Amino acid sequence: MTAERPAHIAYEPGTLRIIDQTELPERVEVVALTSPADVAGAIRAMQVRGAPAIGIAGAYGLAIAALLAAEQADSADHFLAMLSDAAHVLESARPTAVNLSWAVNELLNEAKRRTNAGESAKSVAARLQGAAAALHADDVETCRRIGNAGAALLPDGVAILTHCNTGDFATGGYGTALGVVRSAWSAGKLREVFVGETRPQLQGARLTTYELLTDGIPFTLVADTMAGYLMQRGNVGAVIVGADRIAANGDTANKVGTYSLAVLAQENRIPFYVAAPRSSFDPAAASGADIKIEERDPAEVLTVRGVPLAPPQSPVVNPAFDVTPARYITAFITEFGALTPPYDSSIAQMLRQAPVHAGVAH
Amino acid sequence: MTAERPAHIAYEPGTLRIIDQTELPERVEVVALTSPADVAGAIRAMQVRGAPAIGIAGAYGLAIAALLAAEQADSADHFLAMLSDAAHVLESARPTAVNLSWAVNELLNEAKRRTNAGESAKSVAARLQGAAAALHADDVETCRRIGNAGAALLPDGVAILTHCNTGDFATGGYGTALGVVRSAWSAGKLREVFVGETRPQLQGARLTTYELLTDGIPFTLVADTMAGYLMQRGNVGAVIVGADRIAANGDTANKVGTYSLAVLAQENRIPFYVAAPRSSFDPAAASGADIKIEERDPAEVLTVRGVPLAPPQSPVVNPAFDVTPARYITAFITEFGALTPPYDSSIAQMLRQAPVHAGVAH
Repeated sequence: MTAERPAHIAYEPGTLRIIDQTELPERVEVVALTSPADVAGAIRAMQVRGAPAIGIAGAYGLAIAALLAAEQADSADHFLAMLSDAAHVLESARPTAVNLSWAVNELLNEAKRRTNAGESAKSVAARLQGAAAALHADDVETCRRIGNAGAALLPDGVAILTHCNTGDFATGGYGTALGVVRSAWSAGKLREVFVGETRPQLQGARLTTYELLTDGIPFTLVADTMAGYLMQRGNVGAVIVGADRIAANGDTANKVGTYSLAVLAQENRIPFYVAAPRSSFDPAAASGADIKIEERDPAEVLTVRGVPLAPPQSPVVNPAFDVTPARYITAFITEFGALTPPYDSSIAQMLRQAPVHAGVAH
Repeated sequence: MTAERPAHIAYEPGTLRIIDQTELPERVEVVALTSPADVAGAIRAMQVRGAPAIGIAGAYGLAIAALLAAEQADSADHFLAMLSDAAHVLESARPTAVNLSWAVNELLNEAKRRTNAGESAKSVAARLQGAAAALHADDVETCRRIGNAGAALLPDGVAILTHCNTGDFATGGYGTALGVVRSAWSAGKLREVFVGETRPQLQGARLTTYELLTDGIPFTLVADTMAGYLMQRGNVGAVIVGADRIAANGDTANKVGTYSLAVLAQENRIPFYVAAPRSSFDPAAASGADIKIEERDPAEVLTVRGVPLAPPQSPVVNPAFDVTPARYITAFITEFGALTPPYDSSIAQMLRQAPVHAGVAH
């Protein structure tokens, strides 16, 4: 992160401050969130977005809930019931990224264990402040490991095509796919980055460009329709994307448009990498068929910042994600290194070795 | 065409009136063009666009040039020199669609033949008014033939995915790929149309939706990133697009994003059709490598109607077209019926049978 780019998530006990990402890059507006409902609303509205970042925001949301519940609850059961309610509100803000429910449940389970062991609500609430902050700090370290593991896979002078935003703004900091870009740049291996604008919400055009400009990393912005053109001409050496949920067999839900890039990469014999932390893997989903795809407001397709793009009565579908079958994925880049096919076994092996998140103390 | 939708190209000798397509669907603004430079400017700015439509506009532009030259020229050579200059201005307005240079040269050659045979400039100019109008009328008939030939290929209850705008606004009227949609709808075969918004210029979102709404044909608008999602889920029975230039081997230049749809269609075993008149075939291009791809203003990617989508200093590439290799194309749908592989021979055979355009008398 550079001096020019402010931290997009900052917490002090009881208050989560985020930069409203829907207003970037024109305006840097900080929003203060002081209840789990506030945090859930900000996640739903995509004021904070990106699978790891909404996990961190969800954890802080539960930390806020613990402070409020410790004040209001008249029993240990009541305290845990209030926390469970808050966890449900937070988890259901967005359905596809598993990091959100994963992070919220890490903290909820911590609270249950400590409360059931006789610790006071106030003490448990204080512990959750630290647990959320540890989860945040750990995510930055995880991203750096992902970045370095990814850079090691890439040839010198590589041009990387990426999709959506997977950088600082999508994580605790540094980024997943964009972390690989950063590490490749630091290692002197990167020629340039092609940034797909990522309709409908334009996270590539609005956020990834902003991060790359402030870091001084050379890039070219294209409309999503142009990715195939670049690949066909031999301009792209690797495609690297993030993930919102990875099934046990390697099928990967990520920002809509990812599947198209994976098919185009295979057709043009370009390696296609998914950069994601262990917390994006969901062993409860056997395959992509078990992943729920969020359908969002038609207004995202019909307008940009209030400007109409189409007749307003036009029927629209607006899936926020798609599922890329595992067979298109060259490797997963995780904080534990690269996972290669067959994914059934390489993913299972990683999950056995890292059953819980290193950053949350038990 | 319905009563609600005005004709987008109307000509009276010396004045071409077009609807400014950059302002649709919000505003229906008619622009009057009274010189070849005016017409070339409107083509360059995409106030009139679509390969067949810019061919027709180019023909009318040369008809205007003939009237002006007949007034100003002091010899037959001078008259033809002025016409050749105008033809050059018109042809070079946009480089990729072959229909433009084809139509302009049809009229220029007509003028040369008649002038060299001793006909007066005024008489030749009068003939060109009729020749341009005939070319326009013939295009509507050609589109209806394409539409009917395409509908015959489709199964009952088909859902068609299309790209860009290939309808009334892209042709003399009725459309190429959208003509197939119209004919399939009339024949009771069409379930619905998926319209890709077609960034950067949003011809799908702005123009195709408008045509389908006024015709009462059911459709769903999606961002370009969502086409793969729809195909993968089995929602699409056929992909049908237009063409700007088709090489002798079947490689096809069309609106950027077409190549991606073709690759996705093949991967999902969905037929991929190119609907185009004989005038879009260019035997002078042996393959796609011989087709020049127009690079347009970065502002088209950076903004929508003046609203910034990205930091303004972001580097951009903006190819208006891409080339789909012939191997991805199930069939070409022409006014002479469907052409199937091997395209080297099926295209050559059609061109032998229809060496010149039926609508221009010789």
